[in-house]
Amino acid sequence: MKKTLLTALILATGVSVMAQQALRERPDVQSPVINAQNDVTFKIFAPEAKNITVIGDFGASPLAMQRDSIGVWSATISSMEPELYIYRYDIDGVKTADPANVYTKRDISTTYSMLFVPGEKTDDYAVHDVPHGTVSRVWYDSPTLGMQRRMSVYTPAGYEDKKNADKSYPVLYLLHGMGGDEEAWLTLGRTAQILDNLIASGQAKPMIVVMPNGNAALPSAPGESSAGFTVPTTNLPHTMDGTFENAFTDIVNYIDKTYRTDARKQGRAVAGLSMGGFHSLNISALYPDMFDYVGLFSAAINPRSNADSPIFKNRDNMLASQFSNAPKLYWIGIGNEDFLYNDNVAYRKQLDSKNYPYTYVESTGGHTWKNWRTYLKQFAPLLFK
Amino acid sequence: MKKTLLTALILATGVSVMAQQALRERPDVQSPVINAQNDVTFKIFAPEAKNITVIGDFGASPLAMQRDSIGVWSATISSMEPELYIYRYDIDGVKTADPANVYTKRDISTTYSMLFVPGEKTDDYAVHDVPHGTVSRVWYDSPTLGMQRRMSVYTPAGYEDKKNADKSYPVLYLLHGMGGDEEAWLTLGRTAQILDNLIASGQAKPMIVVMPNGNAALPSAPGESSAGFTVPTTNLPHTMDGTFENAFTDIVNYIDKTYRTDARKQGRAVAGLSMGGFHSLNISALYPDMFDYVGLFSAAINPRSNADSPIFKNRDNMLASQFSNAPKLYWIGIGNEDFLYNDNVAYRKQLDSKNYPYTYVESTGGHTWKNWRTYLKQFAPLLFK
Repeated sequence: MKKTLLTALILATGVSVMAQQALRERPDVQSPVINAQNDVTFKIFAPEAKNITVIGDFGASPLAMQRDSIGVWSATISSMEPELYIYRYDIDGVKTADPANVYTKRDISTTYSMLFVPGEKTDDYAVHDVPHGTVSRVWYDSPTLGMQRRMSVYTPAGYEDKKNADKSYPVLYLLHGMGGDEEAWLTLGRTAQILDNLIASGQAKPMIVVMPNGNAALPSAPGESSAGFTVPTTNLPHTMDGTFENAFTDIVNYIDKTYRTDARKQGRAVAGLSMGGFHSLNISALYPDMFDYVGLFSAAINPRSNADSPIFKNRDNMLASQFSNAPKLYWIGIGNEDFLYNDNVAYRKQLDSKNYPYTYVESTGGHTWKNWRTYLKQFAPLLFK
Repeated sequence: MKKTLLTALILATGVSVMAQQALRERPDVQSPVINAQNDVTFKIFAPEAKNITVIGDFGASPLAMQRDSIGVWSATISSMEPELYIYRYDIDGVKTADPANVYTKRDISTTYSMLFVPGEKTDDYAVHDVPHGTVSRVWYDSPTLGMQRRMSVYTPAGYEDKKNADKSYPVLYLLHGMGGDEEAWLTLGRTAQILDNLIASGQAKPMIVVMPNGNAALPSAPGESSAGFTVPTTNLPHTMDGTFENAFTDIVNYIDKTYRTDARKQGRAVAGLSMGGFHSLNISALYPDMFDYVGLFSAAINPRSNADSPIFKNRDNMLASQFSNAPKLYWIGIGNEDFLYNDNVAYRKQLDSKNYPYTYVESTGGHTWKNWRTYLKQFAPLLFK
């Protein structure tokens, strides 16, 4: 290969000049590095810094890094439990993702670095060499909200095969929390990996998973609509005021019209985390013949005090109607340190007082993706049996 | 809404505690901010820093930032040309994405912040309220390479409508450069936005766009395969040695089997940037009856000196065969500052010497996404007419 070509190809994008310069100027720092026994070392080259800490969801307090003689800072955590973690550095007050780690995820309005520690516990959400489903970003028309809206759809391996052209599939509607969007269950939730693995091992039935955007005021995740590169916010109109629930049939209609679905109650599940659990509670009660499987993951239970939707005022009657022909599974999962724990205790008492059947799983921990991934792993195998 | 619920919902994810703490400790810095006349201000709160610059593809030299009394640094660029830019900060030697900007993209092994300056020039790759196509990540079986591989597929708005169930669509195969992957044309290339807009305005025909992974040694983009969260590299085996070209029929076969395609020469195009242009040159010559439209965007022309594939040894004969029944369009685009400019001059001379017809577009600038987005905007409207 000619030398000019080699140069040009190494510089295969417009800005790689900068990357090349960076490599020449600094030591080749890799971070994070997973060593034997799952000891994990974080590193950053910051010769001028005075103080650097690692802040992550693996520990309550910041972890101090130590500087070496040339300015590479490092810190090691011993024997990390297998998990998908997120972290940032605090460099003299600048909180930023790890520059050496290309795996980042936006969570609401903050960019975090990701650390995946493999092991038995995380095996179900690692990528394996099994048949993979297709993940699509799809726009649908919502006549109720008067806009095109974006959703993510997982179709299981084999769905697109022409040999399955006559086969229909059950559908799990999977809803995110406040501040989230149609990307949340795919990124930090690892939904595609979890479903690929559960389906490949025969633990879950092949199913379509629909992940809509639960913010009724927005068409899509930040950056994906005509609003452009806006700053994400949690202060959105029409949050938890019943609007999303009222417009939910637009989603189900679109899915049943577009995909090969089992469009019966026994072929539909709805589940969600936090605000998405609140939505799942309300939606399954508002449309009592629509869902035979309901999952409340760390669910918000109580409406806002100023929310005046009939959905909330008539909840008791709606639940009575729903449980008069009870869903096959009404699954409640929450961590014993969750902010919403007491509200869930009260809700279960309410269900108990009426003898409404449900399945309850109490985990340790709080309001975390770690729990929500685990709940999905537990919930999905129970569906459509 | 109960107070505990409000608290819990604001903390709708496991780590938002950190985000909330951050907000209390520091001024609310927004960055970047696009002001009147497209003056763009970059900001960062870094009270302890001694020197900060902005490094971006909008300028050759780093831009110095100025500190205010509380430690917020800022720099403004006046009258920025509408474009999609990428940038980073250099904070006392730490090169990192802008912590206040949630829009980041990985380019090979570096994470950049994105800045979209809207205007007439970028209007074609902004998101507009037009019908949107679907973007899918799909796994296909490659018998030639002996692995499952991942690709991105754009299907135009309406493709999934049952009313179009009998309609077939032409296909553009769109190939990335060295160091890129099946995400590259979607992220920095803005392919979905460009096609949505060109199709909605009637400038381009509705078409499927297939964006495979051109690294024959890898199944997928980093982080998406069973290899886990590896460090991306450009030093891959089977790069530009003919392997990808030889396995390309696996891709076409899968697409024609799975999608409603116009599976004729007149219904297929292949184009690519840099290494992807090299692939497009070879693939269209290797399969002379497959593609009626060929696009070489800043293409690499010459094989490696040690590459001994018959594809390269027989190139003259293959081109003779291809041009004996010439494609309807053989489109070459390159910037007059591109590293590969001279190789493209020599290649055009070779085509001229044989009277092989082609269309040539010379732009300003070099080997940049700015040019590749423009070439796609120019090329797509010429297809399938």
